[in-house]
Amino acid sequence: MVALRDRGTLFIGIDGGGSKCRASVVDADNRLLGTGVAGPANPLHGYAQTIDSIVRSAALALADAKLPPETLGELVAGVGLAGVNMPRLYNEMASWANPFRKMYLTTDQHSACLGAHRGGDGAVIIAGTGSCGYAWVNGRSKLIGGHGFPHGDKGSGAWMGMEAVKYLFLALDGLAEDSRLKGELLQVLDSSDANEVFEKIGGKSSSHYARLAVPVIECAEAGDPVAVSIVRDGAAYISALADKLLELNPPRLSMIGGLAPRLRPWLAHHVVKRLAEPLDAPEIGCVYFAQQSLARDAGESGKNTGSKALFG
Amino acid sequence: MVALRDRGTLFIGIDGGGSKCRASVVDADNRLLGTGVAGPANPLHGYAQTIDSIVRSAALALADAKLPPETLGELVAGVGLAGVNMPRLYNEMASWANPFRKMYLTTDQHSACLGAHRGGDGAVIIAGTGSCGYAWVNGRSKLIGGHGFPHGDKGSGAWMGMEAVKYLFLALDGLAEDSRLKGELLQVLDSSDANEVFEKIGGKSSSHYARLAVPVIECAEAGDPVAVSIVRDGAAYISALADKLLELNPPRLSMIGGLAPRLRPWLAHHVVKRLAEPLDAPEIGCVYFAQQSLARDAGESGKNTGSKALFG
Repeated sequence: MVALRDRGTLFIGIDGGGSKCRASVVDADNRLLGTGVAGPANPLHGYAQTIDSIVRSAALALADAKLPPETLGELVAGVGLAGVNMPRLYNEMASWANPFRKMYLTTDQHSACLGAHRGGDGAVIIAGTGSCGYAWVNGRSKLIGGHGFPHGDKGSGAWMGMEAVKYLFLALDGLAEDSRLKGELLQVLDSSDANEVFEKIGGKSSSHYARLAVPVIECAEAGDPVAVSIVRDGAAYISALADKLLELNPPRLSMIGGLAPRLRPWLAHHVVKRLAEPLDAPEIGCVYFAQQSLARDAGESGKNTGSKALFG
Repeated sequence: MVALRDRGTLFIGIDGGGSKCRASVVDADNRLLGTGVAGPANPLHGYAQTIDSIVRSAALALADAKLPPETLGELVAGVGLAGVNMPRLYNEMASWANPFRKMYLTTDQHSACLGAHRGGDGAVIIAGTGSCGYAWVNGRSKLIGGHGFPHGDKGSGAWMGMEAVKYLFLALDGLAEDSRLKGELLQVLDSSDANEVFEKIGGKSSSHYARLAVPVIECAEAGDPVAVSIVRDGAAYISALADKLLELNPPRLSMIGGLAPRLRPWLAHHVVKRLAEPLDAPEIGCVYFAQQSLARDAGESGKNTGSKALFG
């Protein structure tokens, strides 16, 4: 094992969301030492579970790196969390007596954007269970959408699932046309009538609804008109979101999240042409954020958009 | 006080829903003796509170009738509850060791329909926080819609509020046109940006969303195109629901619920022409249900659609 004093500053990037919390430890030369994954870390759904998942994912990453547990107190942490664009949740998390040497907190959108563009300026469309657009250009951020389920996050997996379930209830009542989508949804939900559909999905969380997005997109790909209409409506919103981001002249635009590859063919052509592959994962974006924040704190040049590339 | 043995059978009708539970006690000659109102009684939201609200509303109705509390054990109760079209909740409530001489349980739609048509056959559109259509014709029932918020209950107050909030987030992001509705909603929600709107309404219950229905309808009445589009979409669904009910040839069709008077002008003309005033309240419908059920149990003629009118 390398002696502590030889290692220089160790950074940990921690990306927390509604289902998982992922951590990566890197050394002063940006070499990946270890990774860890723990449970949900969304402060909107609970403070205690969030800090528990952050600490667990960090401990697992240290163990993976074969570093002793007490190294936790040496780490400079960049933490990207869902929900902390709300001041109340940001303040709650920022005032946590955390176990790290230093903790820099930002939104999961910011860390995802930094990851996608290797610490540089750019914009991202995030399309998974939820949806939003985020840009970081010339030291200024802009968030569009991402207001949550079920009132926002149009075009997301949960939104598609909700639209599909709304249609399914109408069709079961004879108030909407039958379709291939109806049959597929009943099969996925293992239901034959409205009561069973309600028991399976009624009042469930966004991630339950998001599981229906794949059958919706598959039916759309097969030409089912109901599914095509849902996917087109969602994709039109995502394209409009992209246009809003492109108004800010980001040097790069990426689309990330579980739905991204399936949604891409449905976007406007001029948007698809602008899409660039994301370069690093969100938890690596958290590392960039920690490095940039530490450098700024240390009085180095104000702008820090050119961090050294990880795995570059 | 009248001696117990002189009173004949006492009936109590109890109508329970998501916000209130209303009880009415009547004597053997269908004279209203007293009424009581207690808290929520929706078994989907909790068994303990439901039975508590039922017993409280009954005790208050007895007190209002100047009858001693122990009269509870004499009452033949008709109880109409939200949620009991789900077998699990019906069985849970039906197996309650209730304090009444006898309890007959049915859905709140059935009791509302019996009330609207004074115990006779008919159909109702229920448009309040939620929406649904229900018909009781020739001893057979038919429920259409009513699948719940936010995946069902199109055209209801909660649905209108949700559609309005979705639009509001789009408009605040510059992804939908400005409108009078946007300004009205921001005022009602005492908010000036998306974060404030989220804090006020995000993740709130259907009754919170339903409070936005009045501003939506007022904006529609004033000709605001966004609000008109929401209300027309909802009203078209309610008209389609009415058409489905009319296929069953109900002798009467009524529209009830808090949104009914505001929604009526937006329905299809042929539906409006068929609407008849509801005759009695849902808790009186519960009394009819208890009387009909008791008569059937007693072996009187199977059909009991011609109960004596209350307050007729």
